[in-house]
Amino acid sequence: MKKLKRSGRLVDMTYYLFQHPHEVISLTHFSERYRSAKSSISEDLVIVKEIFEDEGYGTLLTISGASGGVKFIPRIHHEQAQEFVDDLIKQLAVPERILPGGYLYMMDLLGSPKFIQRVGQVFASVLANKKIDAVMTVATKGIPLAYAVGQYLNVPVSIVRRDHLVTEGSMVSINYVSGSSKRIQTMTLARRSLAPGSRVFIVDDFMKAGGTIRGMMDLLEEFQAKLVGIGVLVESVGAEERLVDEYMSITRLSEVNVRDRTITVERGNLLDLLQTMKLEDDDK
Amino acid sequence: MKKLKRSGRLVDMTYYLFQHPHEVISLTHFSERYRSAKSSISEDLVIVKEIFEDEGYGTLLTISGASGGVKFIPRIHHEQAQEFVDDLIKQLAVPERILPGGYLYMMDLLGSPKFIQRVGQVFASVLANKKIDAVMTVATKGIPLAYAVGQYLNVPVSIVRRDHLVTEGSMVSINYVSGSSKRIQTMTLARRSLAPGSRVFIVDDFMKAGGTIRGMMDLLEEFQAKLVGIGVLVESVGAEERLVDEYMSITRLSEVNVRDRTITVERGNLLDLLQTMKLEDDDK
Repeated sequence: MKKLKRSGRLVDMTYYLFQHPHEVISLTHFSERYRSAKSSISEDLVIVKEIFEDEGYGTLLTISGASGGVKFIPRIHHEQAQEFVDDLIKQLAVPERILPGGYLYMMDLLGSPKFIQRVGQVFASVLANKKIDAVMTVATKGIPLAYAVGQYLNVPVSIVRRDHLVTEGSMVSINYVSGSSKRIQTMTLARRSLAPGSRVFIVDDFMKAGGTIRGMMDLLEEFQAKLVGIGVLVESVGAEERLVDEYMSITRLSEVNVRDRTITVERGNLLDLLQTMKLEDDDK
Repeated sequence: MKKLKRSGRLVDMTYYLFQHPHEVISLTHFSERYRSAKSSISEDLVIVKEIFEDEGYGTLLTISGASGGVKFIPRIHHEQAQEFVDDLIKQLAVPERILPGGYLYMMDLLGSPKFIQRVGQVFASVLANKKIDAVMTVATKGIPLAYAVGQYLNVPVSIVRRDHLVTEGSMVSINYVSGSSKRIQTMTLARRSLAPGSRVFIVDDFMKAGGTIRGMMDLLEEFQAKLVGIGVLVESVGAEERLVDEYMSITRLSEVNVRDRTITVERGNLLDLLQTMKLEDDDK
């Protein structure tokens, strides 16, 4: 790369950091990349950090020592998350979403990469100071969410399936009881697709009784993996007994009234979690 | 937002443009956002454009007129795409990937958000001057690819399913013949998940005879939608008759020899397409 002035370095650095979240980038790397003195790079990073923090893109952690450098931690402001959640609630409450059986049509939202990216940022914000090795979800609707979270955390994604695919090699299967229908079902995960001992965040678009998530938790044990957290976009509050205790939800669906065509949605617990967490509580 | 100096504006602008690809951003927008004169904003954009083009992030198109502004078009350099493809070929040719039946394990690659993002950039580069309204794929392995392409093109994703889900409302179903097994299968797409008349790019991870893609093409007709292009990560060159004529592939798998444990992979046609295309041939 050719020698760059500060203006050029700032553009490139912003792009580069955004492409490498949660990764330690040494000052030497930038210094060689731009053929500039480390002192200049340090000054650049102060500017980048200030804008990132002011605008709620995230923060830059300074890692000292021989293998030191900076690490971009995506993290949006609480007010931005709140705005996102409240806007989502408004969008979810539109009666046109009601489907026969009281289901909600959500593919317009789930089909938007921009929306999905924002959800990824929101979850990554709450997970900013957790050590996570992989994101897990179950096919199919959770998949885009899992990739967005994985992208912002810079970790791989493991996709659990309800069928057995020949193109995935040896699989680990477990049986689980669907919380709503009480039927016994099977879920599988390719043996190679999750490293033993991984610290895992489970994400899904929707949770009712939580049977599917409970199944994924059981599957984690087969991989000697550790659950770090659970996140859902929409939790449905119903009469069923919850099979999962601790989780975070972006929104909470308390009622779909097919007759009156009304939907009652409120904020989930994620906003509270985001507010109480501090970047100092780093468990990395 | 507070008044920013050039250095701050450059950081924020880079981030902002990257979050809003293929979208016209007016100078007024930036001018108000940073409380800076349009002449300063224009100078900023010259700097951003130069770095984006030099580094192969994309280009900034200037849109003149009353509704004018700039548009960030993600587009990587041909040499970067070539490096990516050649590296992928090396990774695919590793004998450990061979599964019983001559299938290839690819979930380590497909499970990496970073890899998927890069594939999205590569496809978006070839599609830089096409007018596209939606990206379509079939569950499940194509899903992350479709979102990455959709993200870089800033368009929604339509996910075709092989089952019928109650949570998607009315569905359009078609029957298709799987090219390899010659079995008749069904695929469905939620009526609401693709606007009639849309211009669609179809993407999938793997194509053998092309029966699944042929099915999606038939499905497009049910939506009076228009096919703009087809892209696959890996095409398998076999004895079967191809059911699809025009498509682009990133890699081409010509042989998996289970006995000798060798895999023969070469470049697909995408690199040639990327080289011959010019941004001037804009059909927007």
